[in-house]
Amino acid sequence: MSLTVMKFGGTSVAAVEKIRNAAKKVIKKSLEGEDVVVVVSAMGKTTDHLARLAGELTERPNTREMDMLLATGEQVTSALMAMALQTMGQPAVSLTGWQAGITTEAFHGNAKIKDIDTRLIQQHLNSGHVVIVAGFQGITDKGEITTLGRGGSDTSAVALASACGASLCEIYTDVTGVFTTDPRYVEEACKLKEISYDEMLEMAYLGAGVLHPRAVEYAKNSQLPLTVRASFSDEEGTFIKEGAAMEKGKSVRGIAFEKNVTKITLLGLPNEIFTLSNVFNILAENKLNVDVIIQNALDESRTNLSFTIENGSLGETLDILDRNKARLQYDDLNIETNLAKVSIVGSGMVSNPGVAAKMFDTLTQHNIKVKMVSTSEIKVSTIIHEKDLPVSLKTLHCAFDLAEKEALTMKPSLG
Amino acid sequence: MSLTVMKFGGTSVAAVEKIRNAAKKVIKKSLEGEDVVVVVSAMGKTTDHLARLAGELTERPNTREMDMLLATGEQVTSALMAMALQTMGQPAVSLTGWQAGITTEAFHGNAKIKDIDTRLIQQHLNSGHVVIVAGFQGITDKGEITTLGRGGSDTSAVALASACGASLCEIYTDVTGVFTTDPRYVEEACKLKEISYDEMLEMAYLGAGVLHPRAVEYAKNSQLPLTVRASFSDEEGTFIKEGAAMEKGKSVRGIAFEKNVTKITLLGLPNEIFTLSNVFNILAENKLNVDVIIQNALDESRTNLSFTIENGSLGETLDILDRNKARLQYDDLNIETNLAKVSIVGSGMVSNPGVAAKMFDTLTQHNIKVKMVSTSEIKVSTIIHEKDLPVSLKTLHCAFDLAEKEALTMKPSLG
Repeated sequence: MSLTVMKFGGTSVAAVEKIRNAAKKVIKKSLEGEDVVVVVSAMGKTTDHLARLAGELTERPNTREMDMLLATGEQVTSALMAMALQTMGQPAVSLTGWQAGITTEAFHGNAKIKDIDTRLIQQHLNSGHVVIVAGFQGITDKGEITTLGRGGSDTSAVALASACGASLCEIYTDVTGVFTTDPRYVEEACKLKEISYDEMLEMAYLGAGVLHPRAVEYAKNSQLPLTVRASFSDEEGTFIKEGAAMEKGKSVRGIAFEKNVTKITLLGLPNEIFTLSNVFNILAENKLNVDVIIQNALDESRTNLSFTIENGSLGETLDILDRNKARLQYDDLNIETNLAKVSIVGSGMVSNPGVAAKMFDTLTQHNIKVKMVSTSEIKVSTIIHEKDLPVSLKTLHCAFDLAEKEALTMKPSLG
Repeated sequence: MSLTVMKFGGTSVAAVEKIRNAAKKVIKKSLEGEDVVVVVSAMGKTTDHLARLAGELTERPNTREMDMLLATGEQVTSALMAMALQTMGQPAVSLTGWQAGITTEAFHGNAKIKDIDTRLIQQHLNSGHVVIVAGFQGITDKGEITTLGRGGSDTSAVALASACGASLCEIYTDVTGVFTTDPRYVEEACKLKEISYDEMLEMAYLGAGVLHPRAVEYAKNSQLPLTVRASFSDEEGTFIKEGAAMEKGKSVRGIAFEKNVTKITLLGLPNEIFTLSNVFNILAENKLNVDVIIQNALDESRTNLSFTIENGSLGETLDILDRNKARLQYDDLNIETNLAKVSIVGSGMVSNPGVAAKMFDTLTQHNIKVKMVSTSEIKVSTIIHEKDLPVSLKTLHCAFDLAEKEALTMKPSLG
C-alpha cells in the first residue's frame, strides 16, 4: 500500500474544531486506500505560551530544559488528533518523537535527526492504524528529549516520509500554496502549480513559515515529492519536486524578499588571505547569521568588506566587532539599516544571461537604487531601501510576466 | 548522604511565582546537606484544561491517548522547576516518568507502579544535581506512557522515595497538615503533630486531596516516614509514621467524614451463600465503589442488604441492579440520599470498648439518628443525615477532647 505523510502546522490545529477538520482530511486520505502517517505541530500559540513561562523564570533558560518543556506541545496535539480520528471511527495511535523512533544528535534546541527506526510505526500501520507523530522532537542516544529548532515539524514530516518510504509528503498550512510573490504586496501574485526543490529553497521566505528550507533540503536529498496546501480548503496546493515543469521562455519563477536587513561595512581591513575567515568565524562563533557578503579590495594592502544581517542582531554584532577590533584590524565601520532584499528566483535563469540585466533595468527605471547585488545559479538578489520594496515587487512581477504565466495553471481559490 | 523526596502538588506550582517559592524550599533542603529528588504535579488547572480539550472531542476518550495527553502537564512543571533551580544557582535536571525509570503495569489511566530503575536518578544525584521527576506517570514494558490515576503524584513521590532509599518523603500542599477534623466545620480543629499510617488512611478524606490513601499504603508497606506540610509557610506539618506517639488516655485521634452518601437497600434477597458475592461482583465489574455494607437476615430464606455509594453513581447503580434483577432475585429496593458518613479514628480504640458507645451517646444526645454503623479496628463509622453533619462533628470533637489534646503539640500557624 502506498503511504502519505500529512503534516499539520500550528494554525491548522490551533483549536479542537481545527483538529477535527484536519482529522477529516486524514480520513478522506485513508479512505482513498493510502496508509497515513500524520505529523502535528503544537496548537497555535502553545509554544509561545510555554516559552513565556520559561521567560518568567529566566532570560536564558537551559536548552535541555526548554526541550523538555516545549516537546509537550506537540504531544498534546498528537493525542487530541488520535482521539479526533477515533471518534470518527478511524483506528489511530499517537506517538511522541522518541516512541516514533526518531533519534537526533545531542544538540538541544536545534538537533539534527540522525536516524529513524520505523518499526513501531510500521507495526501500527500494518494493523490498520493511522499513526500520529508529535513533530519537532526526537531523542538522543542517551534518552534525552531534543527539539529540532525552527521548521522542526516540517523536518519531522519529511524525514519520516523519507524513512517510511512514503510516496508523498503533504504540508497543510494556512495558505493555499507557494505564490509568485507575496499577494499582500502584489495583487497579481499567483499560486505556483509546481516548483523545483532549489527554487523552493530560494522562495522559502515568501509567506513566512510556509515551509522551512531545512525540510526542503531534506526532501531534495531524498527526492521526496512535497505539496504545500491549505488545511482550510480542498484546493490543490503547490507541488515541489525535482525538475518541475517550466513554461517556455520563462526564466523567473517568482520574487522573494526579506525585510529588516542591515548592511555593515568594515573599512580598511588588511587585504590578507585570512581576513574573510577571521571576520566570519568570529560572527559564526557567536551564532550571528550573515547573508549577502561583498568584498572590494581597495589596493594591495587594504580592503573593504560589506555584509548584511537582520536588523535585530545589530547591537550584538557591533558588540562583537568592537571587542575584536584589534584582532580584525579594521579602520572604521559603516552601518545602513532599514534595507530589504529582493530576489528573482528561477532555475531557467542559469541559461539566460539577460535576466539580471532586466532586473537592474526595471529597478533603475523606477529610481530604485541598488545597494548590493549577489547572485546564485537560480537567483539574483538586490539590496534596496525598505521603502522601495512595494514598488520593486510590483514592477518586477510585471516585468517578468509572472501574473500572466501562472494564470494558465491556477485553480479557483476557495480560501 | 541522606536523601529527601519533596513533592509539590498542583496548587503549590500553579504559577511561575509559586514554582520559584517551591524551588527556594528545595535549595534550603539541599543546603542542609540533603540529596533531593523533587516530584511535581501539573500546574494548577492544567490537567482540567487538557481533559476539557479531550472532552470537546469525545465523551469517552481512549485511555491510552488520555495518558499521552495528561502526562504532558507534569513534564511542563518539571522543566520549569529545573529552570527555577538553575537560575538560583542550583544544578538541576528534570526527568519524565519514563526517564526516571518508573515502569508500570499496562493499565492506562490508573496504572500501578511495577518497578523503578533508579540508576539515572542516582547518577544525577551523584553529580550534585537536584533531580525533578514528573509525577503521576510511568511507562509500560512496551514503551507506552501511562498515568497513575488519582493521587498519582503522591504515589510517584512515595514510590521514588522508597526505591531510592530516602529517609523522608515530604508532601507539600495547600494546607499546613492533617487536622483533627475539618476546620471549616469545627473551629477548634487542631493540626496533628503525628499520626500513624493506619490512622492516616482512615483520615485521608479529611481536607480532600491532602494525601492520597494509595500513597499512604505504599509508604506503610515500605515503612517510609512521610510529612504533610504547607508549601506557603515554614510551619512544621504532620508526621506520618508507624506507631506515632499517643497521648495518654486518648483513644480517638480525629474525626473523618464524607458527604454525598446514598444508601441503597435491597429487600427480600434469597438468603443463600452466593447472594453477597453476586451483588458486589456485579457492582465491581461495573467499577462502582461501594462503601459501608450491612446485611440483616429476615429469616432462613430471605435477607435484606444495605450498602452506601456516592450520590453521583446512583443512576448507574440503579441501572445495573435493574438489569440484573432476575439474577439477584430481590423483591424491592429502597433509596436514601443526602447522607453523610462520620467516623472517629484512632489506633487506641481497639483496646477501649467504650469508645463506640460514647460516640452513639453523643449523637443521641443531640437527636442525631444513626442510620448505619460499621466498625474497623481503628475506626467507628456512622451514616447520618447530611444536615446533621456540622453538629455531629462539633459535638464529637468536643466529646473526645480533641481540641485540648492537640493544643499541647501545636506550632503557631503562619498560614
